[in-house]
Formats: sequence, C-alpha cells, structure tokens
Amino acid sequence: MARPTPLSGFPEWLPDGRVVEQHVLDTLRRTFELHGFAGIETRAVEPLDQLLRKGETSKEVYVLSRLQEVADDGAPARDADKQLGLHFDLTVPFARYVLENAGKLAFPFKRYQIQKVWRGERPQDGRFREFAQADIDVVGAGGLPYHFEVELPLVMAAALGELRAIGLPEVRVLVNNRRVAEGFYRGLGLDDVDGVLRTIDKLDKVGAAKVGEALVAEVGASDAQAQACLDLAAINGSDTSVVDRVRALAASHGVESELLEQGLAELGALVDAASVRAPGVVVADLKIARGLDYYTGSVYETVLVGHEQLGSICSGGRYDTLASDGRTTYPGVGLSIGVSRLVSRLLGADLVRATRGVPAAVLVAVTDEATRADSDAVAAALRARGIPCDVAPSAAKFGKQIRYADRRGIPFVWFPGQEPGADDVAAGTAVAGERGPDQVKDIRSGEQVDADAATWAPPAEDLWPRVVPSAG
Amino acid sequence: MARPTPLSGFPEWLPDGRVVEQHVLDTLRRTFELHGFAGIETRAVEPLDQLLRKGETSKEVYVLSRLQEVADDGAPARDADKQLGLHFDLTVPFARYVLENAGKLAFPFKRYQIQKVWRGERPQDGRFREFAQADIDVVGAGGLPYHFEVELPLVMAAALGELRAIGLPEVRVLVNNRRVAEGFYRGLGLDDVDGVLRTIDKLDKVGAAKVGEALVAEVGASDAQAQACLDLAAINGSDTSVVDRVRALAASHGVESELLEQGLAELGALVDAASVRAPGVVVADLKIARGLDYYTGSVYETVLVGHEQLGSICSGGRYDTLASDGRTTYPGVGLSIGVSRLVSRLLGADLVRATRGVPAAVLVAVTDEATRADSDAVAAALRARGIPCDVAPSAAKFGKQIRYADRRGIPFVWFPGQEPGADDVAAGTAVAGERGPDQVKDIRSGEQVDADAATWAPPAEDLWPRVVPSAG
Repeated sequence: MARPTPLSGFPEWLPDGRVVEQHVLDTLRRTFELHGFAGIETRAVEPLDQLLRKGETSKEVYVLSRLQEVADDGAPARDADKQLGLHFDLTVPFARYVLENAGKLAFPFKRYQIQKVWRGERPQDGRFREFAQADIDVVGAGGLPYHFEVELPLVMAAALGELRAIGLPEVRVLVNNRRVAEGFYRGLGLDDVDGVLRTIDKLDKVGAAKVGEALVAEVGASDAQAQACLDLAAINGSDTSVVDRVRALAASHGVESELLEQGLAELGALVDAASVRAPGVVVADLKIARGLDYYTGSVYETVLVGHEQLGSICSGGRYDTLASDGRTTYPGVGLSIGVSRLVSRLLGADLVRATRGVPAAVLVAVTDEATRADSDAVAAALRARGIPCDVAPSAAKFGKQIRYADRRGIPFVWFPGQEPGADDVAAGTAVAGERGPDQVKDIRSGEQVDADAATWAPPAEDLWPRVVPSAG
Repeated sequence: MARPTPLSGFPEWLPDGRVVEQHVLDTLRRTFELHGFAGIETRAVEPLDQLLRKGETSKEVYVLSRLQEVADDGAPARDADKQLGLHFDLTVPFARYVLENAGKLAFPFKRYQIQKVWRGERPQDGRFREFAQADIDVVGAGGLPYHFEVELPLVMAAALGELRAIGLPEVRVLVNNRRVAEGFYRGLGLDDVDGVLRTIDKLDKVGAAKVGEALVAEVGASDAQAQACLDLAAINGSDTSVVDRVRALAASHGVESELLEQGLAELGALVDAASVRAPGVVVADLKIARGLDYYTGSVYETVLVGHEQLGSICSGGRYDTLASDGRTTYPGVGLSIGVSRLVSRLLGADLVRATRGVPAAVLVAVTDEATRADSDAVAAALRARGIPCDVAPSAAKFGKQIRYADRRGIPFVWFPGQEPGADDVAAGTAVAGERGPDQVKDIRSGEQVDADAATWAPPAEDLWPRVVPSAG
C-alpha cells in the first residue's frame, strides 16, 4: 500500500492535536453539565425524507447505500422512506429524538450533544465535509419562557470563556431579534421580510452601497425604505441605548409596530441581563440576520475578537416550532459551536499547543528483559495512584530509553533499583540480592532522586498533558 | 410530523442510559491513558477500495454518495478511488493513519480510539448497524517485541475490571496462539490450516461430533487427525500446565514442530505473566480460533463470567503486518471492545442504573420572575465552585418546583432568601429590604438548612450522577 494522502475536507489530528481537541471537548462538556444540560447522542443517520425537509440543504446530504444493493443493478434503492442519509446538523436529529421520546423526557428538556456531522459541500474557505459540532438546546412542550433566550448564549459565552485560559481570543456574542427586524420592515411598508433579510445578510460581504441597490432592485424598496433598512442594520451596542436608537429611527420613519415593540423589549432584556451576568460579552447588532426563515425570536452569532473574518463560530436562535407531532408543539432555543473549525483555527494559527502528545508522565525504564516484571510492578503501583505511565519497550541502554521519553515529551524517567554488582558485594558496600532504591529523573532539569512508587508523585502540572497558549 | 419510530440496529439511549454509556467510555479512556495510550480519532470514511481489501466484509460496507450525484443519472459515481464508505472497524482506518503519518509518529506507537463504526448487516442477535468500539493497539516500525502481546490483554482486563464497580460481571480473557495451532496441524500432516481453524471455530455452535465429521469430510482429515484436533481444542487452563498438556498431546501423535514450540513458549509466557499481574483473569483456551487469516501470534477473546452466551465482548490479536508501505512493515497487536453491545447488555439486563439522568445536583428555586436574577446569581456562585445546578424554569409554587427536581432526580432544592413580609417588618422581627438567609432542602430526607452559596457543597456522592449496580 503506497502512502495514503489526506482526504480534503475530512480533518484529522496528530496525537498532540487531538490533546487540544479533547481539551476543548472536555471543557465544553463540563460547562454544559455545570449548567444542567444532559448529554445525549443520536445515531449518525436519519431517514432521507426527514433530512430533505429543509430544501436548501438537500445537495449537501450524503446518502447511504449498502454495497450489495448498489451492485445488483447499479443504482441504490430509491424508496425514499427506506433511504438513510448522514445528518448534516444536530438540530434535525434532536427534533426527531424529542418527538420519538416525548413521553419519556421531562420538559423543559435541556440537552447538549457533541457529535460529528457531514456535509457534501465542496471543501473550501475552511469548510469541512466532516466536522464536530457542540450544541446546546432547551426545548419545551407547548411553551418555553423567554428567559432561556437570555440563558443559552450566556452558557456558550461561559464555555468559550473557559477556553481563554488556553489562548482562545475573547468572544463577542452578537444578538438580534427577529421581531425587531420584521416589525420594522413591515412598519416601513416592506412585506417581503425574508427578501430584505437575505439582502441585509450580505452586508459584510458586499457593503452598504450594493445592499442598498439590491433592496431597491430586488425587493422593491424605495430609496428611503432601503436607507432606513441600512440605518437599522448599522445600529449596535452593548447597552439598552440600542433600544432607544431603534425606537428613534422607527419614529423618524413613522413606524409603529407591536411586533417591533415586543422584539425591542426582548432584546433590551437580553442585553440588560447579559451586562450583569457577563459584562461586555453580549452586543446587540441589528444587522445579524441568520437563518431567519425558521428562527422566530432571538438570533445569535459569535465572533472571536481580532478574528472577525473567520465568521461566526457559534450561532443559533429561538424557534417556535422545533418539532410538532400535531398535538403538541415543541418550541426551543439553542446554539451550536463548530468545534472542528475552532480547533483547526487554534492549531493552524499556532495559538495553542499541548505540553505533550502522550498521556504518560513517567517512563519506567527496563534494566534488562529478565527484570521487566520489576518495571511492570512500578508502573502498576504508579497507575493505581492515578499517575499515567509507560514502560520502556526494550531494555536498551538508559541513554536510549531517556531519548525515547524525551522524543514524546514524557518528563520523568523511572529507574527501578538494581541488584548490586559483584564488586560492591565483595567490597561490603552492598548486600547480594538486595535491590538498591528506585530513582526518578526529571529529564528536563537532569535532577535525579531516590523515589518510592508508593508515595512519589509528579508536580500537578506534569501529571497529564495540558493545553497552553503557544509561546510564538 | 407523526411520532417517529426507532430504526432497527441504530441504538440510542435516553439521558439516564447515556450517563451509563458515558461512564463506561470515561472509564475506558482513563484506563487507556493511565497505561500510556494516546487518543486519536480518524474520519468516519475511507476510500472504498481500502475498505474492500478484506473481501468477506464487502457486503457490510455502507457506501456514500452525494444526493446530487445520485439524482443526475440515478446511479452513484462508480469511480472506485473516489468512492467513500463508512468504516466498519477501527483497524483499517488506524492502519491507514499510521502509514499516512508514519514520519510524524514515534514508534512503538500506542493509541486508543473510541468511535462509532457502521456495518450494513441485518440487525439480529444483538448485532447493531451503528455501534461504538473502543480499541487499543500498539504498532511498531519494522518490529514489535513479544511483551506487548502480554501487556495489551491485561490493559483491557484492567479497563473492564474497573467496570465491576458498577455491576459488570467478572471478565475472563481467553488466549490462544496461532503458532501453536498451525504448528500442531502441520505436524499432524494437515496443511489446510485455515480450513481446520474455520471448522474448529464452530465448536461452540455445533459441538465436537459435527466438527469432527466436518474435519474429515471438508478438510480431508483422517479420523485420527480429526480427533487430535478436537483433543487440542479441548485443552484449557490458567497455568503453564496447559503447555505441558499440549506438548504431551503432540508427542503422542509424533508431532514435532519448531513453530509449535515457539507458540507454546509465547503462550506459556503470557499465561505466566498474567497469573502474576492479574491472577485468574487470563485463561489459555486452545479452541480460540478467531480471524486467524491475518492474526499471526496471540489471539484473544473476552467473555463475561455467567454471560458466556453473549459471546466475546473484547477480541483481538497480533498481526505481523498491520500496514506496509513497501519499505517498512508495521506489526501490531490490539484488542477491541464492543462498547454498544456491552452498554446495551448492562441496560437491557437491568444490571446498572444512573443515580439521575441530569447533571444538576441542585435546583435553584425562583421566588418570582422579578427576582430571577437572585437565583441566577446563586447558580453562578455554585457553578464557579464546580457544583452543577439548574435554575427553575418558572416561578411556580415551591411545591411544583420541588416536584420538578424530584422528577429529574435532582437531590437538592435551593431557596434564595426572601424579602421579609410587611407584617414581620411592622412587628420589628425583620428589616425591610434585608433578605433572609438562603436555605437548601434535601428533597429525599426533607431536611432544610440555612446555606451560603459561597461555602455549601452537596455530599461528594451527590455531586455528579453516578452509575451503580441496580438493586433489582
């Protein structure tokens, strides 16, 4: 087999990169659990007809066929309700899981879910075909109080904030509210709300001038209406003065809208609560327009300060109908972190590094193969006390065993006490058959001391691999 | 959307089942890491031609096609080197990963890998189409010392042994050595070694009489040769007397074989070392024949004592050629645990249960929506000290909030101190605006005490959900 080459769009990490990814995953999981979210996993596949309900994503779906089925007549089975596809997000599977298990879940149901998803997109612009997502959602049966729209972005901000310790830049959660946008546009006399939003969504890409032209040419706005939409999108800030500015803008255009007022009350409450619980993290930004076809209240995007060009690393919003079985409707609010993109950025930009790529803090040396059992016993004693260690693969010269540890970043090498040499016994400085004390060497400093596997421990910062900001 | 039904062969757990699965995964991971295995993940897909190298598994492979490609002409792209399939084990991807990254890995390379795999088999007999595997392997560049064939099954035995605390039955690792079998058969004059092994492999299913007949009818053995094979397969034991019994059997048939002697030396060393490091866990069992088409030394199966009919829950062996790039050959030894089958058994047979299905140890009650910020502040203080908690979703009557906690198994409910009533202020027993002390209630005992979120902690056994043996 020739040396294989990577598959574009399917990222994999070397062991030290995986230490970084695992740290990110563990940190997210811990924060989610501290906030009371229960972990679930769903199967990787869903019936194709369920995946295709959102038409615009259909081309991204990977369809599964069993090799035998394909081979029989050259085409996969086409019976849609038997066909399976890989999920492209964790929201569709979660909605199905909620309906399937509604009778066994307690609502409001708060869950986190960290899994791979697949999209058959052309890999470009840092887009992956397989990537890990970390989602939190809360879903109610019949109703869901607004305060969850305040809580969920703060949980994500807390989770990402925990990663600042390893060098993740500061995050800024940008929030908007669909009711504000819809109320304002309708109040202006623009009823193609989705059309306006789709156009406004291009602001960062094409700029205000082109968006203004498009609003006139494609959505049928007057110049004044277009300018009002651009003025609304230009409003942002981290305190409730944002609400006043939107109100003033609306008043200047004679816009009166109950929906707008409702949205502003919600947006103001969110910014208010966030300024107490996580000062400076949440910013109201009226140009945020994402996925407004099914979001119905708050919407969120999250950027890394100083890396805004990366786009949003964590997005979501409120949806009045996550799922419905005809009798009960399940509203929800949730956000999703693109973990692979985040880890790829952390590693690619050399922002972080693992202190080592192997778990072992100690390499137990082997004096000769006949005494390997002594080394195994040392390792067992250390492991029983929670100290990760490895035993040298061969009884090479100690210098080579030390290089084995050094190459892997293992900080300590342990030397089991040796039988005394015949000379020492003859000289009376040692007793035949009585092993000398074990010793442990910090191979970074060269310091070597007597040690007992029943009591010795490495410094806490050396016990497990850690993830730290890169020096460079 | 009507209520969806489960997909056969694609297991999912409710939140409390996921607590059990997560505990199993965390326990395995910790044991693997204590033994120095580095964690990696590989992508879910491999090129189809790589997956089909082992012909007998071809029908199990799920092939991917992008929906668009299928829709164009009704057939997926057939260009084999562009086609991708889902991996059906973690060995094929690991071999590819080793070759792809050989220049960046340090050998011997010890890795663990815990991921889902997919097989398009008919779901039956507890077989899943999607399931999690937990693999450990060590791979060398050019060579790999025998002692790893002793170490790896003991690591798996240690990992599974950790699960006895939650109610997993005792495990027994059954070991054999391909050299023993091959040396013995060839020494008898039976050169169709694979044929004999395939037939012997059916012993548990069809019994000795039918296997004996098949050896004569299908592999061309004489009655005496067939009986000798059956006699070999009947030998088992946990000490080195096994080696003596095999030698005696060989001698009685005039078998002389260097390969047999080499295999017996290895098997004896394994049983010997295991009896010191994990007494009673490893049993030599000469009928173990698994996958001997590519295993070349030790082979392993693992059964749960008292649940032998489940079959092997953890299997593997030594392979002289895990991978090869033409210049370097990479021998390895590894084992794989079928985690989903194990968890399914633990849950299905009601052997274990989670103490609760949500992470929260505390529900912080909400007195009224106007003081929700007080409850949020309590929750933040508890979380900052590592105590998982949830805040009540609505300011319902306290009785209802307590039932909310009770239904989820949350053991403690926290009541933020309240503003005094006007009567108390008038009576001089309280000061207006001065909140009374917070209180926390253990809803199991009913005990309620004053508490400070800056210092109070639940008993350690209540802090996180635990997995315990089921009472029943």
